[in-house]
Amino acid sequence: MTAEYRRLRVALLGAGAVGSQVASLLLRHGDELADRAGAALELAGIAVRDVDAPRDVELPKELFTTDADSLILGSDIVIELIGGIEPARANILLALGSGADVVTANKALLATHGPELFEAADRVGASVYYEAAAAGAIPIIRPLRDSLAGDRVVRIMGIVNGTTNYILDRMDTEGADFAEVLADAQRLGYAEADPTADVEGYDAAQKAAILASLAFHTAVPLDAVHREGISSITASMIEEARAAGFVIKLLAVCERIEANGAESISVRVYPALVPQSHPLANVHGANNAVFVEAEAAGPLMFYGAGAGGVQTASAVLGDVVSAARRHIAGGVGVGESTRANLPIVPIGHVTTRYQITLQVADAAGVLATVAGILSDGGVSVATVVQTVEGESEPTARLIIGTHRATEEALSATVDALAESSVVERVVSVLRVEGE
Amino acid sequence: MTAEYRRLRVALLGAGAVGSQVASLLLRHGDELADRAGAALELAGIAVRDVDAPRDVELPKELFTTDADSLILGSDIVIELIGGIEPARANILLALGSGADVVTANKALLATHGPELFEAADRVGASVYYEAAAAGAIPIIRPLRDSLAGDRVVRIMGIVNGTTNYILDRMDTEGADFAEVLADAQRLGYAEADPTADVEGYDAAQKAAILASLAFHTAVPLDAVHREGISSITASMIEEARAAGFVIKLLAVCERIEANGAESISVRVYPALVPQSHPLANVHGANNAVFVEAEAAGPLMFYGAGAGGVQTASAVLGDVVSAARRHIAGGVGVGESTRANLPIVPIGHVTTRYQITLQVADAAGVLATVAGILSDGGVSVATVVQTVEGESEPTARLIIGTHRATEEALSATVDALAESSVVERVVSVLRVEGE
Repeated sequence: MTAEYRRLRVALLGAGAVGSQVASLLLRHGDELADRAGAALELAGIAVRDVDAPRDVELPKELFTTDADSLILGSDIVIELIGGIEPARANILLALGSGADVVTANKALLATHGPELFEAADRVGASVYYEAAAAGAIPIIRPLRDSLAGDRVVRIMGIVNGTTNYILDRMDTEGADFAEVLADAQRLGYAEADPTADVEGYDAAQKAAILASLAFHTAVPLDAVHREGISSITASMIEEARAAGFVIKLLAVCERIEANGAESISVRVYPALVPQSHPLANVHGANNAVFVEAEAAGPLMFYGAGAGGVQTASAVLGDVVSAARRHIAGGVGVGESTRANLPIVPIGHVTTRYQITLQVADAAGVLATVAGILSDGGVSVATVVQTVEGESEPTARLIIGTHRATEEALSATVDALAESSVVERVVSVLRVEGE
Repeated sequence: MTAEYRRLRVALLGAGAVGSQVASLLLRHGDELADRAGAALELAGIAVRDVDAPRDVELPKELFTTDADSLILGSDIVIELIGGIEPARANILLALGSGADVVTANKALLATHGPELFEAADRVGASVYYEAAAAGAIPIIRPLRDSLAGDRVVRIMGIVNGTTNYILDRMDTEGADFAEVLADAQRLGYAEADPTADVEGYDAAQKAAILASLAFHTAVPLDAVHREGISSITASMIEEARAAGFVIKLLAVCERIEANGAESISVRVYPALVPQSHPLANVHGANNAVFVEAEAAGPLMFYGAGAGGVQTASAVLGDVVSAARRHIAGGVGVGESTRANLPIVPIGHVTTRYQITLQVADAAGVLATVAGILSDGGVSVATVVQTVEGESEPTARLIIGTHRATEEALSATVDALAESSVVERVVSVLRVEGE
């Protein structure tokens, strides 16, 4: 059935959770994929460190090799699923140098060495495909690069890390605390033994850099992404958020803003208050969603599984078919457009609304003092809710919703509040997004 | 700034709500689009029937012409936004014959003459782009054709008609009846003076044919799509649905099923009961959403504005940029893959769950008689709720939820119920989707 097709040799680097599923699907659905690609996709080999390591899926022994370089040099399409920087970077550069197209799910590598890889591809007219690197199985790269190419993206707000969404969602539904849910998530396999990359927002920051680069046609280096994690989020913060009509989500926000009179962008990852009525508020469990606002298209949302071996394999194989079609159709690959090259604004100049929760003495004049400090700091108050706790020595909580203010102004004002004698404790400061 | 780029001549056919926005965006964002396309996009002219007709947007008079053929023959990319079958079909064939790429939002034409257009494009290595034809501004064509090319789509459930979703949503929130809301929707511009195409599901059926063709790599002719509209939906049906945990949505369902032992597909449009917890249940107003289930990727959802001049223009311009990139990169276009060519199953062989509402006499033995008729018809009962109304001459309502049954079996059984002496009236029969 596939005899009529030209054969393309596909090299797979790595046979972990995603790689073994990619190999399995390539072998099982070969005929169907050939019909769609217009080329027979021959899995030429799988390069791994240890040929005898246990795999998630049973695969023919004879495909495995430890000689990645030879495999790469004999292939038309190279799928890199090793992860990390080296040897993934060297492997991809070798593949591109030999004229092969590359498919990768390596967000860490793209966020740090993306421009180097794209330039190497451009030099030989090859392409780097990376649909699986931004939001797992959710098709977001093609919509941003192609479907919205005639539009102007104004803002992206993404839930792009399944582990943190799972943890925050369970904290929300169970009223449980962070450490408790994290431990359970680790037990269930939703979080790694070392959860830092997820929980502290590093993974989301890599994805934010990739999405912002694409959406704003600007190379966004990883260190230009402001990053905060969710380890300081408490059960009571989530409860207070709910009472005020919000849920707390770890968001990757990529925004086109005006700064110093010039068109600029901001890229940031932090836990934020999202109105319960916003589509992102209803993204539960380990799911991901990317909310995109474009000038002409208006609001769009893309929703699905953000991770998982077989889900991510779907995105990888979509890229393999695209690469194969390009091989057959001829022509050079689609390069990355970074021509807009917009300045990236530091977090201090970004404006959002905030919700500040203070523990204060339950005494006359406290609200006036707090209001005065906010006003002096240039932070304008939109709402105040006061709750009183305890009977013998009552303390009060002030939950202050601000109008839009810069991070700089807000941060200085929160410092001033913390030093004030009427404020016992700054309980939390959270940004509000998606209003 | 764009002097370095090769110039591509773009012809626009039609200057209605979408066309005038496309022209305006092309003229305003020319430099930005050139950077993304790698080519300067020159709007060579706008072919219209009446040069002096009023337009939504002010456009340079000298661009207008009534000579579509000359404009087409001098262009690299032709944007067809006339709608309807002729002269759109002839124009597109002329454009493809001359080697131009075509961008169209014409769902009626694609659903009826798609294969003819795609073959004409294939013969010369050109492409037909139609992102705007399936779900307005929502990027769904590229995700189906490219991102999911390595996966197997199992099911698509789409809210692809904004007018009917607007009407059903208002009926749901206001408890109002169909005719009342339709009249108001017409007054507000959400529905046409002749609402037939929207309200009776013709528009949704065209989109279903396009989506199914793409998802299942099978040419799906429009007359193979089973179609029902929403004009028979009443306020009380919506109320009963809500009480049972459902909302009523007009769905385009494209499904891979097994029939007579062979892999087949079903494509159908009808109002269906959707569980309130399903993501599609929360699509409000005139918005659209396409829910896709794929074997490996799992459930995905694409959400956004389904119509509107400037929103649809975003999708059209994305296609124009893609066409321009292909012109610059060289190579042949991506043809439509219809190699799978799966049989399309008639509606009678499709199985779903149903909810049947009957008005019956409030007498002993009625339930037993009804249950007997269902059982004789091969329709198995999952749930029964009985409500009694009136005091002097009480009548009861039986709301019967069935297990999965074929349309054929269901339809014969409903006929038998209607003829039974214990059944006063078959109030409604609705399918349940998305469980």
